[in-house]
Amino acid sequence: MSLLVVGSVAIDSVETPLGRAADVVGGAATYFALAASFFAPVRMVAAIGDDFPEQALSDLRERGVDLSGVERRPGTTLRWSGRYHEDMNVRDTLALDLGVFAAFQPLLPAAYRDSRFVFLANIDPRLQQAVLEQLPAPGIVGCDTMNHWILESRADLERLLQRVGILVINDEEARLLSGERNVVRAARRILTLGPKTILIKRGEYGVIQFSANSVFAVPAFPLEEVFDPTGAGDSFAGGFMGYIARSGDLSEHNLRRAVVYGSAMGSFAVEKFSIQRLLEVGPAEVAARVRDFHRLVSFEQELEA
Amino acid sequence: MSLLVVGSVAIDSVETPLGRAADVVGGAATYFALAASFFAPVRMVAAIGDDFPEQALSDLRERGVDLSGVERRPGTTLRWSGRYHEDMNVRDTLALDLGVFAAFQPLLPAAYRDSRFVFLANIDPRLQQAVLEQLPAPGIVGCDTMNHWILESRADLERLLQRVGILVINDEEARLLSGERNVVRAARRILTLGPKTILIKRGEYGVIQFSANSVFAVPAFPLEEVFDPTGAGDSFAGGFMGYIARSGDLSEHNLRRAVVYGSAMGSFAVEKFSIQRLLEVGPAEVAARVRDFHRLVSFEQELEA
Repeated sequence: MSLLVVGSVAIDSVETPLGRAADVVGGAATYFALAASFFAPVRMVAAIGDDFPEQALSDLRERGVDLSGVERRPGTTLRWSGRYHEDMNVRDTLALDLGVFAAFQPLLPAAYRDSRFVFLANIDPRLQQAVLEQLPAPGIVGCDTMNHWILESRADLERLLQRVGILVINDEEARLLSGERNVVRAARRILTLGPKTILIKRGEYGVIQFSANSVFAVPAFPLEEVFDPTGAGDSFAGGFMGYIARSGDLSEHNLRRAVVYGSAMGSFAVEKFSIQRLLEVGPAEVAARVRDFHRLVSFEQELEA
Repeated sequence: MSLLVVGSVAIDSVETPLGRAADVVGGAATYFALAASFFAPVRMVAAIGDDFPEQALSDLRERGVDLSGVERRPGTTLRWSGRYHEDMNVRDTLALDLGVFAAFQPLLPAAYRDSRFVFLANIDPRLQQAVLEQLPAPGIVGCDTMNHWILESRADLERLLQRVGILVINDEEARLLSGERNVVRAARRILTLGPKTILIKRGEYGVIQFSANSVFAVPAFPLEEVFDPTGAGDSFAGGFMGYIARSGDLSEHNLRRAVVYGSAMGSFAVEKFSIQRLLEVGPAEVAARVRDFHRLVSFEQELEA
């Protein structure tokens, strides 16, 4: 089933300990859509400027991403430039120019309104809410956010969270949102705000999923070289939501598999700069990476005496 | 089979965000021995002062720990006091008084010399080496170390590592020892120094085990309240080595199970101050925690189409 994503599309300049890439394609919605496209048809809502490369749009189209909700407007695309530390869990934003994203008001094409699987990537919670209001029957709503909205738009965010089924945030955001330092207590607290499932991203340490009755943890895939962590979390979310949208199955078994498929997509995203690796990888490699994840974490329990 | 451990026994004063405990039993060898005692008979080599509580010794004896290698000397026991940050992966040492530990020269009772399973907890690598020289046929040698020795006694440490089969260190130590920031590259580099298995402890994120042909990752058990992280790593090492010593089986399957049993013991250690929780817990609880670990990480792969 189709999966709708609304969020940023960007042009990034990134410096990591292993290199740099200037003016490359980025943005949460871009990474999300590419990762999700392995599993389900994706519908994208975003704003781009005159400067956004046509090639990236055809790359997305080629992966079955519906771009009828991507509006090209006069002006520049959102531009972000950042530098990652040796500890790549830490990064500095060197420059941010919102460009046409500053006036972004998501407007869904009529053909998108039957979307039942929705992901609200990190944007102003009022815009995320506005997307939901254009959907008569959103079934499964996933959502990301960031510190800025937690601090500055808390009431809007809390209102939104009542309609969110799956919240995907990082550990720092989880602490800020919950007021709890301990990840378990943070998740328990956030579960009272609406979401039935909380996915807490822990960078190079992986992901931990909480729901009312279960906890599931997956380490990040141990890679010898992480070229560029940008988009890892969005690719994770894309793989996860795509996998869910493919089957519509929200059983615990399927959620767990979705977390692993999401983790696989996140692990590919960081292997090269920008969206490059996500464009190269094919279904066989995805399946192999999931098998590698299984080997990474599996152990046999002792037979009971 | 018996498992020999040499290392510190201490009296700790600890402050964590959840409370404080003054003048309580600590030390790497103490945590290690208690955790290992669930799986194998333990032989301990350490030095204590006049002030070390008799109760703790009888607690250890009651768990089958052979204390004939623990020497009580005139003076005070090693005393450490520390404060953990809100982020309990970070701690400050407030005071350290080596006491009788300053002149510690491990001398093995004759009855210990047939030990085939050995763990050299974090002490001067020259003392660790001196222990090995008293063992005619050490089969499986595990070892811990710390930044201080990596920086100040590198040659001694590297010489020792040639005789070490299993190295248990934390991620910061792995980086310092290898000169590599990336955990995979760090482990690959350390594998060239001698050890066949590297266990890298990542605090609240768990453990990752590297050997020539495999990688195995276990998240830390998600606990709602971590009272006192002191001794978590030593309890992990004790559970791990104890489980190995029980069977002598170094197959990949058994190593993985040992990592999980070690992780279980580490997770108990932090639930109360000092060694309190390790003294309370019984085999049924350990088995239940291991089942919980299995639930925490398990996912079913899709059937291939």
